[in-house]
Amino acid sequence: MRKRNLLLSLFIIFCGNLYSQSITGFTPENIEKQLELEASFEAKLSAKNLDAWMQKMAAEPHWVGTEYGRENAEWMAAQFKSWGYDSRIETYHILFPYPTIRELELVSPASYKAKLTAVAVEGDPYTAQGEALLPSYNAFSTDGDVEAELVFVNYGIPKDYEELEKLGIDVKGKIVIAKYYGSWRGIKPKLAAEKGAIGCIIYSDPEDDGYVRGDVYPEGAFKNKTGVQRGSVMDMPLYPGDVLTPGYGATKDAKRLDRKDAPTITKIPVLPISYEDAQPLLEALKGPVAPDSWKGGLPITYHIGPGPAKVHLKLEFDWQLTPAHNVIATLKGSEYPDQWVMRGNHHDAWVHGANDPVSGMIALMEEARVVGELAKKGQRPKRTIVYGAWDAEEPGLIGSTEWVEDHEKELQEKLVAYINTDGNGRGFFRAGGSHTLQAMVTEVADIVIDPQTGVSIKERGIARQLVNGGPGTFSLSALGSGSDYTPFIQHAGIASLNIGFGGENAGGEYHTIYDTYPHYKRFKDPEFAYGIALANAAGRIVLRLANADVLPLEFTQWHATVSEYLKEIMDETEKMRKDVEKHNSLVSKNAFELAADPRKVFVKPTAKEAIPFIDFSPIQNSLAKLSSSITAFEAVSVEGLPLSKKEALNKAMQGTEQVLTDVSGLPRRSWFRHQLYAPGFYTGYGVKTLPGVREAVEQKDWKEAQEQILKLARTFNSMDIHLQKLISLTE
Amino acid sequence: MRKRNLLLSLFIIFCGNLYSQSITGFTPENIEKQLELEASFEAKLSAKNLDAWMQKMAAEPHWVGTEYGRENAEWMAAQFKSWGYDSRIETYHILFPYPTIRELELVSPASYKAKLTAVAVEGDPYTAQGEALLPSYNAFSTDGDVEAELVFVNYGIPKDYEELEKLGIDVKGKIVIAKYYGSWRGIKPKLAAEKGAIGCIIYSDPEDDGYVRGDVYPEGAFKNKTGVQRGSVMDMPLYPGDVLTPGYGATKDAKRLDRKDAPTITKIPVLPISYEDAQPLLEALKGPVAPDSWKGGLPITYHIGPGPAKVHLKLEFDWQLTPAHNVIATLKGSEYPDQWVMRGNHHDAWVHGANDPVSGMIALMEEARVVGELAKKGQRPKRTIVYGAWDAEEPGLIGSTEWVEDHEKELQEKLVAYINTDGNGRGFFRAGGSHTLQAMVTEVADIVIDPQTGVSIKERGIARQLVNGGPGTFSLSALGSGSDYTPFIQHAGIASLNIGFGGENAGGEYHTIYDTYPHYKRFKDPEFAYGIALANAAGRIVLRLANADVLPLEFTQWHATVSEYLKEIMDETEKMRKDVEKHNSLVSKNAFELAADPRKVFVKPTAKEAIPFIDFSPIQNSLAKLSSSITAFEAVSVEGLPLSKKEALNKAMQGTEQVLTDVSGLPRRSWFRHQLYAPGFYTGYGVKTLPGVREAVEQKDWKEAQEQILKLARTFNSMDIHLQKLISLTE
Repeated sequence: MRKRNLLLSLFIIFCGNLYSQSITGFTPENIEKQLELEASFEAKLSAKNLDAWMQKMAAEPHWVGTEYGRENAEWMAAQFKSWGYDSRIETYHILFPYPTIRELELVSPASYKAKLTAVAVEGDPYTAQGEALLPSYNAFSTDGDVEAELVFVNYGIPKDYEELEKLGIDVKGKIVIAKYYGSWRGIKPKLAAEKGAIGCIIYSDPEDDGYVRGDVYPEGAFKNKTGVQRGSVMDMPLYPGDVLTPGYGATKDAKRLDRKDAPTITKIPVLPISYEDAQPLLEALKGPVAPDSWKGGLPITYHIGPGPAKVHLKLEFDWQLTPAHNVIATLKGSEYPDQWVMRGNHHDAWVHGANDPVSGMIALMEEARVVGELAKKGQRPKRTIVYGAWDAEEPGLIGSTEWVEDHEKELQEKLVAYINTDGNGRGFFRAGGSHTLQAMVTEVADIVIDPQTGVSIKERGIARQLVNGGPGTFSLSALGSGSDYTPFIQHAGIASLNIGFGGENAGGEYHTIYDTYPHYKRFKDPEFAYGIALANAAGRIVLRLANADVLPLEFTQWHATVSEYLKEIMDETEKMRKDVEKHNSLVSKNAFELAADPRKVFVKPTAKEAIPFIDFSPIQNSLAKLSSSITAFEAVSVEGLPLSKKEALNKAMQGTEQVLTDVSGLPRRSWFRHQLYAPGFYTGYGVKTLPGVREAVEQKDWKEAQEQILKLARTFNSMDIHLQKLISLTE
Repeated sequence: MRKRNLLLSLFIIFCGNLYSQSITGFTPENIEKQLELEASFEAKLSAKNLDAWMQKMAAEPHWVGTEYGRENAEWMAAQFKSWGYDSRIETYHILFPYPTIRELELVSPASYKAKLTAVAVEGDPYTAQGEALLPSYNAFSTDGDVEAELVFVNYGIPKDYEELEKLGIDVKGKIVIAKYYGSWRGIKPKLAAEKGAIGCIIYSDPEDDGYVRGDVYPEGAFKNKTGVQRGSVMDMPLYPGDVLTPGYGATKDAKRLDRKDAPTITKIPVLPISYEDAQPLLEALKGPVAPDSWKGGLPITYHIGPGPAKVHLKLEFDWQLTPAHNVIATLKGSEYPDQWVMRGNHHDAWVHGANDPVSGMIALMEEARVVGELAKKGQRPKRTIVYGAWDAEEPGLIGSTEWVEDHEKELQEKLVAYINTDGNGRGFFRAGGSHTLQAMVTEVADIVIDPQTGVSIKERGIARQLVNGGPGTFSLSALGSGSDYTPFIQHAGIASLNIGFGGENAGGEYHTIYDTYPHYKRFKDPEFAYGIALANAAGRIVLRLANADVLPLEFTQWHATVSEYLKEIMDETEKMRKDVEKHNSLVSKNAFELAADPRKVFVKPTAKEAIPFIDFSPIQNSLAKLSSSITAFEAVSVEGLPLSKKEALNKAMQGTEQVLTDVSGLPRRSWFRHQLYAPGFYTGYGVKTLPGVREAVEQKDWKEAQEQILKLARTFNSMDIHLQKLISLTE
């Protein structure tokens, strides 16, 4: 709709600070009104609330199923109600394991019993709550009692196993020890099990997450030698949410899988430990010295093994159905009550969770408070706004997933967009999401002021990109997984965003007993200035989506982004071809063997299968066609469009993101339906764009690649038909 | 001389292993004879000699001035004599400091007295020689007694001080602590003094040189926590050799500078320490956390300071004139006694020096033994061969430098080439030197067989290059400094080579008490197979230079290499221009300030002066002209050239490398005369090719860059005239 946007762009508002702004989706007569509303909204945000609410919500541990978690939910529901929302608690009954036995011992050549407990520290009374703190463990590890030689596998990701293969080391029947980082944690036991390992230990190496990064808690923000990162190892790239109710809500009476059949529980026991506990284990390894890139920050020579270190790992869990309480608060829209805009953040934590999730949750609440207050004063949003506080995000996005699965049809009919936040801190604005929303988010980022520098959060972000050699434009990253947007965008096909601030708040508290109010105040966002900035940015996004004359979706940037993803895959295919050619040439020259040290174990590489030429033209053709339709759509003028047509247009635009999904889902994981964005099957949180095609190429499954190319071309053709329909609605 | 080479290339020799070979500088009728000679030579080499001689020479510490060093020299002289050489000891009287006081203490906030002593280890009785071991120190540190706050400066090289500037940290009046590596050690105190520091501590970080790399001695080869690297910090990039007699021999009655006027003694006291001694000092630092790339392998958070750590450093030396005994052994040539080929290796060590220098010295001796034996049997070389065993290399290339300075005129008239070796070990063939010799060395590398793989050392080296993404051709690296070739090539203008094997012999023994026979046997070259390979390669090079019909200089590869160096500098200038433009664009956008964390110290960068466009055309034109002359020269046929003309040609070719020198030397360091190769003024051992131009560009001294361009163009024009002369001699 170029004409409309162009006109709006020319309609420049001079605010007090001479700040110019154009806003997508608003007709000229409504721009000023909207900006005034947003200014009132911003003016009413109070950092004091954030501070008080964090102290309240993070006073005690509140993982799913705890009494304090339930209290937090009820308190939030009451708060929303007091602000004018129709609020309720929607409870699901989910499987949640609580650790009853956690034993890890080095049994030979020396003996060491892992402590598995982080110490209380001076100046932070929350860390001294003892028994009340959740023991450190990985949720959805299977029960197990194993003893075997140990193998150090670096991060335990695919390329590490390739390296082990070169060294002739097999993990079959062994217990692996992997560093945290390098991938989402759940990939480590998944891959280890695929490779035949019988147990998996994950530890935080001081190089990635300890004294190498900076002074440790309580002197500094980083992980001390006793800190342990908890976290879920559920196979979320298969499906997130309740392991027993895939694809539908875990209501009280839902039909449930047998636990033994639940495919997202790990195949082998897995336990996270501190670097203090890891050192004696690693020190007891012999065998080849680890490659340089594997070495961490412990004062030892990193060996790979296997053995002679032998360890015993025993884990048992209490597997109980546990209530997960989602808080849902609704403010009905004045003009389009059946078009919803949803904001969400989870409220459950692993321990106190001052940063994760409370720092995001309180920003959402302050935003909701002011939106409610404005509504009471007559500035009710045109569309319905729904605030959600999710439970059980930590063990596997469970609260949000069950809710989305339970309400899927209604959401697909009504929900315009979902805007997610999670932890928040000092630094730079980060936003990921549906690229149809990139233009709108860019405009918001251009008006929200960074509290430390006084320039817009967009300008500050671009400054950092430029200094780091990046581009001079704002863009949305693509969404993988790791927070509650996943069921919305990747399952239900709802346009989604995930936003927050960070980059100047580094620390080692993530999922430990050290993620507390004192830690947050010292190292994250001491004055809650970025909490307010987040409420401001998210609130403006919500208010624009709620009040726009025409939904602010933009397709030119979307098309450019998608085209770039395709180019990446095509380039990657060419690179793979060249790499294989180079590899095979070296094999034919016997270069690998000649270059290898004959005194070290060396598995001679063999020739690889040549990379075939792939026909990407179906996607290229469909994108070319789409390009014309987008040009036509942007040329449409909506000025003076009769109300009925505008309403029909809005209604049709609401379902745009769903056009990008396919009900058959991705290969081997039908729960993930979005054809543009998915968490990587072997990266976990890390995104794979155009995942069907990209993962087939990466896995060298050329038949599947060609099938997925056709499927993706069909998706883009559907998008083309959809755009034609939108255009026709304006004629 | 393409025709000649072409003819020789066609004349393929089939050896027993069907190995084909062409050899530059020999007429067809002499190729087979030469190859038979070399085969006889190779067959007589004995690893047992190497083993026995290492045990003898490395039995006790033998730094310059020691009784054992003198005994080694006399024993070697006698050996050479017994092999038919005219051998003598040439002694110079050089300034050499012996440490009398070495004190380093952390005085606040905690107290720690550095031990400064490496421990004896089990299984290596040499390390238990106690008082006989030379205390760890840096030779040619000035005396000093200083106390000040400490600053961690990473490697203490120019870019580290740029980083400190960004952080607003000044080392003026402070004592700096720098890691070894990143540059030659002498750069660290030189630069620290230039920046105003009053003392310098250098330590071996376990990441570069300790347990991070592998198991430590005696369990493994790497540096244990007590090991200390000794070494010279003389300002060798100004001039090497005796600090009191720059440019002339340190004979008994030579005129000497006052020690206080000697410019190559450091301006501030400097002491090397172990990582055990470094840790308490580094741990006591506060201030900013070091950038990621600065962090080492100690189990601490690396802070920069300054302070609060305060240290006291006291150093005193006994500055004595010490005799340095060079062993010179001559085998007169049968046909051209006044054309010399010289081979050298030093014999002094910091402690036992099994690897450095004995492993190279014994290979040289075995080579000399067999060459002598062949001569006795009637296969005397046509040219004179001179073997040199240098003393006092470790404190600053002193023995060789004084000898070259003392004999400069004769060497410039007679010496065809100098071939240097130093330590040696298991692995890949490495060769650096004058690129006129590249063709000849390539041919030798193509016939010497790697003892582990059975392919040629050239093929194995290329295999490694290919695996690492490098080129598929053999080439010589350019020579910087760090061993005794420096006075030959860079001062006297003698074509030189430096060769050896390594890459599979890593360890932490360098310049420590752990560089012993047991360490060598376990970790370097257990069967002396690579010692034999070195004797084989060096011996063949020597024998080819000694017997060639026409000296084997080749100019096409030389020209290509030099042209590549020019291209590097031109590309670097362009890169500097783009970097400055980018920097200034970021400054104009205030991007650095916006991207910086306001809670951290940040010095706002200012705009830099734009990089002017430089006129490189004088060099380009002279290289273009040279290219034609080289083509003409290579087209000359020397077949059937009368003996007198051949002799005149050889005599003229002998001085070729000197054409590449300029008597005025490099800016601010006239001792260094070579216009193609020099050690970097701020890198030390690291080479700078086309150094006059390159360093002026790097220092952004545009006036000097333009002057040096004209000077280098004149040098190339002289080379052109020289080649024209060579051609005319054949007409």
